[in-house]
Amino acid sequence: MKLSDIGEFGLIEQIKKLVHQPNPELLVGIDDDAAAIKISDHQILLLSTDALVEGIHFDLSYFSFYQLGWRAMAVNLSDIAAMGGRPKFALVSLGLPPHLSVESVIEFYRGLKTLGDEFQTQIIGGDTTRSPDRVFISVAIVGEVAAEKLTRRSGAKIGDAIFVTGNLGGAAAGLKVLKSGDIRLKEKFLVVAEKHLSSRPRVHEAQFLVEHFPIHAMIDISDGLASEVNHICRLGGVGAMIFENQIPIAAETGKVAKHFKEHALEYALYGGEDFELLFTAPAEIKKELPKKFYQKFGMPCSQIGLIRDASEGIKLEHADGSVSPLTRKGYDHFK
Amino acid sequence: MKLSDIGEFGLIEQIKKLVHQPNPELLVGIDDDAAAIKISDHQILLLSTDALVEGIHFDLSYFSFYQLGWRAMAVNLSDIAAMGGRPKFALVSLGLPPHLSVESVIEFYRGLKTLGDEFQTQIIGGDTTRSPDRVFISVAIVGEVAAEKLTRRSGAKIGDAIFVTGNLGGAAAGLKVLKSGDIRLKEKFLVVAEKHLSSRPRVHEAQFLVEHFPIHAMIDISDGLASEVNHICRLGGVGAMIFENQIPIAAETGKVAKHFKEHALEYALYGGEDFELLFTAPAEIKKELPKKFYQKFGMPCSQIGLIRDASEGIKLEHADGSVSPLTRKGYDHFK
Repeated sequence: MKLSDIGEFGLIEQIKKLVHQPNPELLVGIDDDAAAIKISDHQILLLSTDALVEGIHFDLSYFSFYQLGWRAMAVNLSDIAAMGGRPKFALVSLGLPPHLSVESVIEFYRGLKTLGDEFQTQIIGGDTTRSPDRVFISVAIVGEVAAEKLTRRSGAKIGDAIFVTGNLGGAAAGLKVLKSGDIRLKEKFLVVAEKHLSSRPRVHEAQFLVEHFPIHAMIDISDGLASEVNHICRLGGVGAMIFENQIPIAAETGKVAKHFKEHALEYALYGGEDFELLFTAPAEIKKELPKKFYQKFGMPCSQIGLIRDASEGIKLEHADGSVSPLTRKGYDHFK
Repeated sequence: MKLSDIGEFGLIEQIKKLVHQPNPELLVGIDDDAAAIKISDHQILLLSTDALVEGIHFDLSYFSFYQLGWRAMAVNLSDIAAMGGRPKFALVSLGLPPHLSVESVIEFYRGLKTLGDEFQTQIIGGDTTRSPDRVFISVAIVGEVAAEKLTRRSGAKIGDAIFVTGNLGGAAAGLKVLKSGDIRLKEKFLVVAEKHLSSRPRVHEAQFLVEHFPIHAMIDISDGLASEVNHICRLGGVGAMIFENQIPIAAETGKVAKHFKEHALEYALYGGEDFELLFTAPAEIKKELPKKFYQKFGMPCSQIGLIRDASEGIKLEHADGSVSPLTRKGYDHFK
């Protein structure tokens, strides 16, 4: 059987079964944004790794090396944020074609370091090797979190309100614009293009949330809302209803979709790399939380749905009141 | 300027300058086998990452996926060993062509896990992505070490005896045999072929050494003896004299060299991937240490030289008594 037959998630299930073993130190394993290891009664170490492959995750025709370093750091910081943690250290593993310029690689590290510095995350090691044809990047990140702040994907409770930070679909719209290769389009839709190229991990936002509210489950949105809602429900053993007309989509994302004769909702549900946070919390704070979040960050935090019993499935209520199953259609690396 | 102009070590120097910043928690940064982070007065966290690229570090014509997983774990365990530490957790980042079979990937994980289990090292996370043409592997490893056992590359003192565990040059000889594609040659020289394919990280040996002897500096031999002696000397601000006729080379390695009309000494000095330990300790234990090491492991630990003042340079005394500089000629990824 080929990888393309079982897909990314089928493969991960098989790997999980193989490597699973009970370990009292290991609080969270493969099934979350980061692994969590107990190092004392109060402190937990968070560890995660994310890879970026040229031609799959990025294209050097529209990513500068600086932006690429930024992105490689952002995706990893975002994993620590989604656990409620504080990032601290990064290791950078690189495969580089030897014809690359030294300046490009230094620019890449400047991007990594600029975003890392902003979140007090230091590059402390790595490995630099030759790769014959493509740039390959793998960053491993180390963070920490107080035991009572650790937030897993699996904690959703029936009746919880479901929230997202910021707006969705912007990165997918930006990718559309960048891939068009049309410079005037890029200038016209600069905000979404930038959203794709210079996404900001929600580290401070996640810390604010876990410090001030009883967050039950959290995940970062890297594969589109539909995929992440499905993860939260599967791991929590619950269902969900998402309300289409409450999904926050920026006006410019709508304009891009219109330009390409597509639907902005599709970008939000199935597009990747927004790196916003999806989380659940008791419904009684559904008014207070968005208000305080906005006061602090000047950015929306929107309730988009409710956690329901697993028997009710994972569904999307459309603007016209009709309901359909919300299936995962995010990117599968092998399909 | 291209990477191929400044080479791997030139690039690392530039990266080091860029990312360096003083941090009281960071005891050891980029200049060693692993980074070391203080987590309490007694405990230190060790972190390292090593990448393997198809066509550069390995070739699937002679590496099975099981052996490849084993190797990916071994090189990382070896980094923790070289710091005097105990490995604990691993994260596995993979780029995989979608035409690969699921069975191959599971075999790869079986290799990782079998060696990991032997050293109580658990796979706790990772990232699996598509790579269009080549297998790309990056493993990040987490270990721990008691503060008083942490062994850096930089601790060599003038007058120290220089030791190596096991025999050198075997992995390079094995690679020669494997690359020849000659199955009868592989059967004839099975021990060295196995040395290349199934190298054993010296984790237990390193722990025995740091527990029983005052080890001043330690490094694992991944790029050939000459390169590692140069690292130890540069970082310790010292010189060294290595005695050619004390370098331990297994008889079979000599036979392979003879078959290929090459010199086994060259394999030991400049060949890679032996994953033995090179370390320095006070000269007064030069008899006791190899004896106790042999009693414990049934494997040689040989004194191969002495640490000298930096002004005396880094030199090799040949069998005929003549002396020449011992320059680094190990593999450079970009030259």
